[in-house]
Amino acid sequence: MSEDTPTDTTAAETREDRFERGMEVLDRVDGEVGRKVVDSLADVSPELGHQVVAWAFGDIYSRPELAPRDRQLVTLGMLTALGGCEPQLEVHINAALNVGLTPDEVVEALLHASVYCGMPRALNATAVAKKVFATRGTHPKP
Amino acid sequence: MSEDTPTDTTAAETREDRFERGMEVLDRVDGEVGRKVVDSLADVSPELGHQVVAWAFGDIYSRPELAPRDRQLVTLGMLTALGGCEPQLEVHINAALNVGLTPDEVVEALLHASVYCGMPRALNATAVAKKVFATRGTHPKP
Amino acid sequence: MSEDTPTDTTAAETREDRFERGMEVLDRVDGEVGRKVVDSLADVSPELGHQVVAWAFGDIYSRPELAPRDRQLVTLGMLTALGGCEPQLEVHINAALNVGLTPDEVVEALLHASVYCGMPRALNATAVAKKVFATRGTHPKP
Amino acid sequence: MSEDTPTDTTAAETREDRFERGMEVLDRVDGEVGRKVVDSLADVSPELGHQVVAWAFGDIYSRPELAPRDRQLVTLGMLTALGGCEPQLEVHINAALNVGLTPDEVVEALLHASVYCGMPRALNATAVAKKVFATRGTHPKP
Amino acid sequence: MSEDTPTDTTAAETREDRFERGMEVLDRVDGEVGRKVVDSLADVSPELGHQVVAWAFGDIYSRPELAPRDRQLVTLGMLTALGGCEPQLEVHINAALNVGLTPDEVVEALLHASVYCGMPRALNATAVAKKVFATRGTHPKP
Amino acid sequence: MSEDTPTDTTAAETREDRFERGMEVLDRVDGEVGRKVVDSLADVSPELGHQVVAWAFGDIYSRPELAPRDRQLVTLGMLTALGGCEPQLEVHINAALNVGLTPDEVVEALLHASVYCGMPRALNATAVAKKVFATRGTHPKP
Repeated sequence: MSEDTPTDTTAAETREDRFERGMEVLDRVDGEVGRKVVDSLADVSPELGHQVVAWAFGDIYSRPELAPRDRQLVTLGMLTALGGCEPQLEVHINAALNVGLTPDEVVEALLHASVYCGMPRALNATAVAKKVFATRGTHPKP
Repeated sequence: MSEDTPTDTTAAETREDRFERGMEVLDRVDGEVGRKVVDSLADVSPELGHQVVAWAFGDIYSRPELAPRDRQLVTLGMLTALGGCEPQLEVHINAALNVGLTPDEVVEALLHASVYCGMPRALNATAVAKKVFATRGTHPKP
Repeated sequence: MSEDTPTDTTAAETREDRFERGMEVLDRVDGEVGRKVVDSLADVSPELGHQVVAWAFGDIYSRPELAPRDRQLVTLGMLTALGGCEPQLEVHINAALNVGLTPDEVVEALLHASVYCGMPRALNATAVAKKVFATRGTHPKP
Repeated sequence: MSEDTPTDTTAAETREDRFERGMEVLDRVDGEVGRKVVDSLADVSPELGHQVVAWAFGDIYSRPELAPRDRQLVTLGMLTALGGCEPQLEVHINAALNVGLTPDEVVEALLHASVYCGMPRALNATAVAKKVFATRGTHPKP
Repeated sequence: MSEDTPTDTTAAETREDRFERGMEVLDRVDGEVGRKVVDSLADVSPELGHQVVAWAFGDIYSRPELAPRDRQLVTLGMLTALGGCEPQLEVHINAALNVGLTPDEVVEALLHASVYCGMPRALNATAVAKKVFATRGTHPKP
Repeated sequence: MSEDTPTDTTAAETREDRFERGMEVLDRVDGEVGRKVVDSLADVSPELGHQVVAWAFGDIYSRPELAPRDRQLVTLGMLTALGGCEPQLEVHINAALNVGLTPDEVVEALLHASVYCGMPRALNATAVAKKVFATRGTHPKP
């Protein structure tokens, strides 16, 4: 089995390099709330914090094959469907707005979710959106 | 409680009108595979078939607040996260390609899913994408 | 494909007609707590509120093919199995009592759930039942 | 902590007694397909087979606090919501018909599920119902 | 169908015997927090409390085929994957420490979960571990 | 925010280095069936194959903080709970046996799962174990 890499990436990186590369993406996408998640892990599971940054953001989010706003649309769909991910929905509704989705698009994505996940998941996710909009002082068009 | 409707929709519609409006959207988004789903329900649950068309497509998909390709990104995220939705993923990976997402964007969305749903859900969804690409004679860029 | 409708429904309805028809069913089944859910959506996603009322209650709940108490038995099963739906369980344990299920039947349905969903889901749902019973001043027979 | 048992059950039973009591209930509810599930476990996990019979049917299903048809309504809701339980749905759609639910009530319960679990779960469960109806030579009223 | 029992258990037990046998195991594994769960059910669903003790602990946990620490590793995996089981995770991270797993092993099991369930489930479970460690005055090695 | 890494890992690695390191762990744990999964991704999502190897096995599985058999116990719990992961359960029941769990321990772990995930998930996972045991010519003690 040969490894058919989609991008030529021959540069050697240390663990720290990968972490730093991920932090740049994390800051751009999740902003302050993303850092808080990583900080909260420092005394219990610093390795989980490292992997969120170095792997999720450094290796996956950093890829140009999908636009940042498109990644958040997929993410909103997943977090709504999974259920019980209200803390992550709060982070990623913020992220969605950070990378260019409008409050109306976020709300519509969660309405769309009612077709595939049912009303309870859509309602719970929309309650998180309401809270995020209030915190940011934004809202969908009336 | 007053109903604050986001769009002015004062026209009266029959049940059949709503169904026909939905079929136009279903045909545009899901194509032939969507019709097959509805047809398969004719002898067991025609009402479920009606609601998929009249409600999901006629009422929700038809709204202009989210672009068709954006709806499919959210949908791919949800179906991957739910698990056990391989038949629906087949319909909606086709739909995603019908409304303008590229095979590379679909594959990247499912890679992105590994961060939020874990590897098994991402692997199962990618196996469906592989099958759909083969049927359509398309594939991601090498 | 012809649409084989199970009921003859040739009357034309406006969007508002469907909403009003749904509100009557919602009031009967969910009572005050149902209205609160719809009201809470007014400033964030009035369309989701509309669809809960017009579609879920107006189109589905209103059908005579399944008795109201039977719909709540199915609903208790689903909400328990989904997990993370404690707010909806609160609404629907109230609804179950509104449409004629006894506290003992509700508690037994959640015990039955332990066979199919496991103990954690049954325990979480039973904790919601305990809270609803306390609020209503009712309780299972000792 | 004292154990406040809802029924007085002072009779001593052997493990075999409990199994036999469960088999009577299993036969009544699930019929032949239930026995096949237990038989298939004989060479891999006889203890799981024992617990399905002695605990699920002997201890839980046997309780008079919820009617057999009501237990199947809850069960149809749970299995539809869980997803990936098509083999169990097949057993329990048969069970539902065995204990007095009509094909129309089964189909309506699965339509109702679309509100709480979304369309994919409702569609997958309805496909199992279609298969069970065909095997039994029954069907919903046209 | 004959019942091929893996252990010879011919002794007759009353319902109370089984409960007492289960309480011994519950005390050893879950300690005080387990008793609290059962006590909280006394006025709403004493039968669910009975079954948690008599069946889950008396019949399943008591079996020697899997070591207590191994049962907790499986349990941590399940509760993390299910989502929305934070109260049960709190009980079972305590249980894991009670039966000999170290804080480092618990934290690593939850890191491992990120591969199969995705980051949100791993993060939510790790937040519960952080809380349990603080309450017990223990922590992973820095 | 400083990154408090649990292990000192200052060596720089290329993408290919990480992949090779992961392949060694994958071969040891999953054996031939693991390679087949990665190979099947070569033409549809080579990046997902890379991440399974380089991240899941190279970064997570390779850590000494949890024994290989303990990782498989957690994994069996997660895959059983998730549902719809039969292909992954097949890989990991094989893996469990490769790293030292006995067929009896695997079967008992899946029986234990019935307490937390309910009977359907336990039954579906046990059916996969039966198939894996048959392929390997092994079985639990009678």
